[in-house]
Amino acid sequence: MGGADEICFMTARELAARIRRRELSAREVMEAHLAQIARVNPLVNAIVSQVPEEEALALADAADAALARGDEVGPLHGLPIAHKDLEETKGLRTTFGSPIYRDYIPERDTLLVERLKRAGALTIGKTNVPEFGAGSQTFNPVFGPTRNPYDLSKTCGGSSGGAAVALACGMLPIADGSDTGGSLRNPGNFNNVVGFRPSAGRVPTWPAAMGWSTLGVKGPLARTVGDVALLLSAMAGPDPRSPIALPEPGSVFARPLERDFRGVRVAWSRDLGGLPVDPRVTAVLESQRHVFADLGCVVEEATPDLRDADEIFHVLRALHFAVRHAEHLERHRDLLKDTVIWNTEAGLKLSALDVGRAEVKRTLLYHRVRAFMEEYEFLICPVNQVPPFPVEQPYPTEINGVPMESYIAWMKSAYYITVTGLPAISVPCGFTPEGLPVGVQIVGRYRDDFGVLQLANAFEQATQVWRRRPPVVA
Amino acid sequence: MGGADEICFMTARELAARIRRRELSAREVMEAHLAQIARVNPLVNAIVSQVPEEEALALADAADAALARGDEVGPLHGLPIAHKDLEETKGLRTTFGSPIYRDYIPERDTLLVERLKRAGALTIGKTNVPEFGAGSQTFNPVFGPTRNPYDLSKTCGGSSGGAAVALACGMLPIADGSDTGGSLRNPGNFNNVVGFRPSAGRVPTWPAAMGWSTLGVKGPLARTVGDVALLLSAMAGPDPRSPIALPEPGSVFARPLERDFRGVRVAWSRDLGGLPVDPRVTAVLESQRHVFADLGCVVEEATPDLRDADEIFHVLRALHFAVRHAEHLERHRDLLKDTVIWNTEAGLKLSALDVGRAEVKRTLLYHRVRAFMEEYEFLICPVNQVPPFPVEQPYPTEINGVPMESYIAWMKSAYYITVTGLPAISVPCGFTPEGLPVGVQIVGRYRDDFGVLQLANAFEQATQVWRRRPPVVA
Repeated sequence: MGGADEICFMTARELAARIRRRELSAREVMEAHLAQIARVNPLVNAIVSQVPEEEALALADAADAALARGDEVGPLHGLPIAHKDLEETKGLRTTFGSPIYRDYIPERDTLLVERLKRAGALTIGKTNVPEFGAGSQTFNPVFGPTRNPYDLSKTCGGSSGGAAVALACGMLPIADGSDTGGSLRNPGNFNNVVGFRPSAGRVPTWPAAMGWSTLGVKGPLARTVGDVALLLSAMAGPDPRSPIALPEPGSVFARPLERDFRGVRVAWSRDLGGLPVDPRVTAVLESQRHVFADLGCVVEEATPDLRDADEIFHVLRALHFAVRHAEHLERHRDLLKDTVIWNTEAGLKLSALDVGRAEVKRTLLYHRVRAFMEEYEFLICPVNQVPPFPVEQPYPTEINGVPMESYIAWMKSAYYITVTGLPAISVPCGFTPEGLPVGVQIVGRYRDDFGVLQLANAFEQATQVWRRRPPVVA
Repeated sequence: MGGADEICFMTARELAARIRRRELSAREVMEAHLAQIARVNPLVNAIVSQVPEEEALALADAADAALARGDEVGPLHGLPIAHKDLEETKGLRTTFGSPIYRDYIPERDTLLVERLKRAGALTIGKTNVPEFGAGSQTFNPVFGPTRNPYDLSKTCGGSSGGAAVALACGMLPIADGSDTGGSLRNPGNFNNVVGFRPSAGRVPTWPAAMGWSTLGVKGPLARTVGDVALLLSAMAGPDPRSPIALPEPGSVFARPLERDFRGVRVAWSRDLGGLPVDPRVTAVLESQRHVFADLGCVVEEATPDLRDADEIFHVLRALHFAVRHAEHLERHRDLLKDTVIWNTEAGLKLSALDVGRAEVKRTLLYHRVRAFMEEYEFLICPVNQVPPFPVEQPYPTEINGVPMESYIAWMKSAYYITVTGLPAISVPCGFTPEGLPVGVQIVGRYRDDFGVLQLANAFEQATQVWRRRPPVVA
């Protein structure tokens, strides 16, 4: 049952259910995806460091054999996956998009990869990233750029760019990613898929250089909100290797997402308090605003006071760069891109007091946002301030005539939300007149990751944007 | 029923139960404690900034009236309390032990004070602290030193020094404190009472300058472990004002503490890996080691690898000092004690990378300790490396002939544990030949605050050290 194309664009939930019921074999599913990758990946360059075909098929056969034996299997059993190339994978090359690690083969899986494998997902390769994940544009000197499947001349965003494109093109049913300044949300937004930045600690991170840091998080990407929830159910839950892991088990995300939103107060923020936003983005969001009202939400224009978000993000991000790259800078300066050098040097110039004061400001911001979110259960805003831009352009240098002061300045609508610590999702919202995808960012209350999934699911059910327009290359 | 002395040395649990059953009135209890304070406090100087007597009695009368009306009351209903003078109290002078704040009257209570009041405790004053809580010796230019009630020529430790002394002298049945480098444990240790440093986030802190910091925590002090558990049940539980608050409700600490410890593996560390420890401290601990064996524990000599704990603590502590005191240093240098100036200047000299690298080392330490605590459920070690020293001495300058490199170096046995992030209690263990109290530090697994209370309770039940020898002045 089901041709290759049907298999490759089936939801992960459906695919997993059919495999479990043995209506589809894991091998059929694997073959369909490998064929799709062979056909489409050369055009977009989303998947890199692929597992040899015979190994991938052997994994699928083993998955089928487990079902034939009646073994108990995990929620992702038999689903092909490729891991973000920032995620270490045992025996499988992990480059971080850097020529320094061009030939690096890790000896262990990260906790995330370990969990996904245990849940039954079958690792078939790695997805492309910007060099060290820096910047929301997926290009690097090891693999080159990943292209937007809706327009090959445009960027797919990043840093989970390869992941989002692989999903959009039916090369994978699920993919993992990570998000510091928007890296799960931005590529969701640019490629008509769903990217979810959960609360810090929701998906425990190990290894983590600074175990208590809440800036960067891991999270799921998929074509639908339901699939994102399925994937999160396998990713989430406590692990002693992360001191900040949240205690709820991942299974809480396997509950039905349906909910009545009548009377729920929603803040609608067109520009998060004065950020320049490309009118094509605004037009798409405004055209779908009625959907939230149709769901019964009370939608009001309101924006939390995000004062200092920019400084907080710059300082804490630069600290991470200094920790991660001080040694790279010393030993391999010639192998680092300018923006990584700039960001690392910015970190090396900071004092401890700069960091402390950023933490103080982050705390004050937290309290302002917390008060705001007592009034509103959700905040809706743009994911990004621009639609996908030319793939040759490392980053937008201006928006609506406003010059961007750094390579990440165009990401404010995403990283302001990072700094609040709220969970936030990008869900497909529509298309620009040129046919480029635009997502909407739904932000929920502290630790209410499930609520975000519920509202995103209701929006998706009402709009079905993800089904509306296939990529030009898929 | 019960004379003043009986009331003042009754356990808080018993006192609260009798008040609730109206066998004792809150007024009787208040009068007994006020009389004890009037008699003993001038000798030890533990309680400062007292509430006027008529106000304290009015609070007690209101508590009695609530019971007469049949109101539902909290677990601390009618118990007198004084708050650490680092804790802001609405309308009640809060000096932080600093002449800069000699006349500061806060306009709000901290979350901790708010909770204690809501639980029914009656605020009668503030307990003395070192200037800004810096150093584990309670003296400051506003109120002078607090003296050890077992020998008035000795220090009571600190920084929750006033709290511990007030408990030891029967001036209070319960007291709150806080602990960065040992400030709940050390004064417990020096004054024959119990001080518990819970896990970070167990007692949510608000306001907190850096809301995500886990170095300093709030916690309970009392004469018995049961009373500490009672107090913690009122202090603990999530609050949205703290982003790192743990989710369990405080009521989990109201459960019975009895537990069978047979077969439980316990690591016994005489010196935490080579710290100089005064032989009088070692002798007391060794004399009680059999108690853990008698409880059925499997006691083995073992110490986790605490490498880098010293550097981590110094860097993170100095960062806090820089954040808290950079402005004080600029505007009131003449009003700061040398050690605060030294510590703040140390913080101002640090780079962001110093902080980042300390966080990296803290993460590695966490993983080593986590592995160790998989093997052992508890770690037993000295609270402090010395018994109480002369009250005129700001800090010990040597231990067993080993010179101390800073004013906090003598606190390593306490702050090494701080840096691990494990919950740790000081419970009375015995006395030096001179009659000075010595506690034992019981350290539990990550977030297993209840387990620590259980083992401490079993030890206390077996030894009853707290009943063995009253303070010379009480």
